Amino acid sequence: MRAAVLYGPGDVRVEEVPDPRITAPTDALVRVLLAGVCGSDLWAYRRGAAPGPGIRIGHEFVGVVTRVGDRVGTVRPGDVVVAPFRWSDGTCEFCRAGLHTSCLNGGSWGGALDGGQGEAVRVPLADGTLVPVPAGPDDPRLPAVLALADVMCTGEHAARAARVGPGGDVAVIGDGAVALCAVLAAARHGARRIAVAGAHPDRLRLAEAFGATDVLTARGGEAVEWLRGLSGGHGFPSVLECVGTGLALRTALDAARPGGAVGYVGVPQDGEGVDVRTFFRRNVTLAGGVTPARAYIAGLLPEVLSGALDPSPVFDRTVGLDAVPDGYAAMARREALKVMVDLRGG
Amino acid sequence: MRAAVLYGPGDVRVEEVPDPRITAPTDALVRVLLAGVCGSDLWAYRRGAAPGPGIRIGHEFVGVVTRVGDRVGTVRPGDVVVAPFRWSDGTCEFCRAGLHTSCLNGGSWGGALDGGQGEAVRVPLADGTLVPVPAGPDDPRLPAVLALADVMCTGEHAARAARVGPGGDVAVIGDGAVALCAVLAAARHGARRIAVAGAHPDRLRLAEAFGATDVLTARGGEAVEWLRGLSGGHGFPSVLECVGTGLALRTALDAARPGGAVGYVGVPQDGEGVDVRTFFRRNVTLAGGVTPARAYIAGLLPEVLSGALDPSPVFDRTVGLDAVPDGYAAMARREALKVMVDLRGG
Repeated sequence: MRAAVLYGPGDVRVEEVPDPRITAPTDALVRVLLAGVCGSDLWAYRRGAAPGPGIRIGHEFVGVVTRVGDRVGTVRPGDVVVAPFRWSDGTCEFCRAGLHTSCLNGGSWGGALDGGQGEAVRVPLADGTLVPVPAGPDDPRLPAVLALADVMCTGEHAARAARVGPGGDVAVIGDGAVALCAVLAAARHGARRIAVAGAHPDRLRLAEAFGATDVLTARGGEAVEWLRGLSGGHGFPSVLECVGTGLALRTALDAARPGGAVGYVGVPQDGEGVDVRTFFRRNVTLAGGVTPARAYIAGLLPEVLSGALDPSPVFDRTVGLDAVPDGYAAMARREALKVMVDLRGG
Repeated sequence: MRAAVLYGPGDVRVEEVPDPRITAPTDALVRVLLAGVCGSDLWAYRRGAAPGPGIRIGHEFVGVVTRVGDRVGTVRPGDVVVAPFRWSDGTCEFCRAGLHTSCLNGGSWGGALDGGQGEAVRVPLADGTLVPVPAGPDDPRLPAVLALADVMCTGEHAARAARVGPGGDVAVIGDGAVALCAVLAAARHGARRIAVAGAHPDRLRLAEAFGATDVLTARGGEAVEWLRGLSGGHGFPSVLECVGTGLALRTALDAARPGGAVGYVGVPQDGEGVDVRTFFRRNVTLAGGVTPARAYIAGLLPEVLSGALDPSPVFDRTVGLDAVPDGYAAMARREALKVMVDLRGG
């Protein structure tokens, strides 16, 4: 089969790779229908893989089950499924607690295993990982379902970590796909005010379409000043950090109201730490981390299928598998917000 | 009157200072009965005040009201009172939310104002600040009440920030007065296991008397390894950071279980930041900050008066006002855990 393989910085190629096959009775094979290119894929793309044979990439996909191992019971060949961005057994103490990203037997797509950006994927621990989608392979709602693999759940995680609730005032730092999904998440939790500090006017317009009440192209101190002004001087009780840089995290912490919470879902890629002295006196809680998407998919899927929740506009460019390198390049140049790979034509 | 004044590093003196007087109708004057020397006083003592006339010091005191301004309604002359370590109006939006340390009109003892380590204190915003204690000036429970000014409430704050609940497993980093009070707080919240990583065998014995189930003299990586081992390999769901150094905070974060919380109440005095990459994958929440002691005193006071909660053993040395410099020196040399200043004899 063919799949995306990452080599050096900026060098992703679509190549012939071994067909996946069942290697454990808990495996399933999935033919990929739609895959996403994620902001974290883009970080990897910029850094490049370690020198060597290249690594598989992609962790957002929706597909059709083609074969299952003897011990798979929840999905069958022909089922359309969505996979969260990590696989997990669904039975360990962490999965049972809803923290599937800390699964004792789980792992990540890509690297030496199949990535999502390819024709097919071997899914380990299929029962714990895959979520069946009651829809056909050509269902127009599948792009929205694809967003549940990562970005929509990640926005939801940020909102929960920052304790967004009905009538709450929420600030969102960033205007990438996760930030936009965080706006949707804040809205579905009933936030009253949703202020977004971003960098791109067109993305901020989408934020408004998603429910943002106030938007500004600003970052750092300018964003903090704006957010404090909007909130009567004291900052926001809930701030959602959706960028993944030290600057964004500091901005979020500075924009938080005393007693408030920052939900952070982007790990600072630049390695910049945070100085707790800047928020100790304000009793700001820093919560979040890597999103246990598997814990949220079941809850969000009905809303997506009903149309009540539609994150699909975050995909503003669609490419075929062979054009995956073009998709990365477009995202790296900020020409595309988020690329969807549609493998249904081939 | 006489009061402690801080000059250069290690230089605290008891000197004649102006008698306090009512300067606003919301003021009260309090004659100090008991004062405490806090770990944060010790940080200031080591650093010294900025060059100049010296600053007043001390923020833990129990006293008797001697005079009140015209607009003070909740305390009267003759009342025994305990003051939290910051004063606050009790009416602003933050006070109403239980975050008195962010009071819009509040402030700190000491500096250019009266500190707690002196014969008397002018208390601004007395109604919002002072808590009446139904006890006489010679009541043997007053040392335990004095602990409510800061350390016992701070231990409580750590426990709440780290979501300690019935049956919970709790790790405490440190064995100073706040850490020991955190043990008491964890016990009163019904923790099942309370493991303390400290530095002083005698203090760890007191931790055991307070309810610790496991103690070890260890810090840094050794403490993390011990705590992970105790918890089946994954760390503790609740970790209480009660030291106030970057090392202690990193230790606490490393010892936290995936999905767990670190309650931190000591701000890193060494200015060392934290790298969120070390706990992002584990979804560890960092919560806490400066303790709104005023919010907790009313709840804890009945337990202290009934004897159900007795933090008084943290005071292992008592001095008169003139010996305050000796008290600081003893704490700096780690000969005393926490010094109480008893002004009732004079």
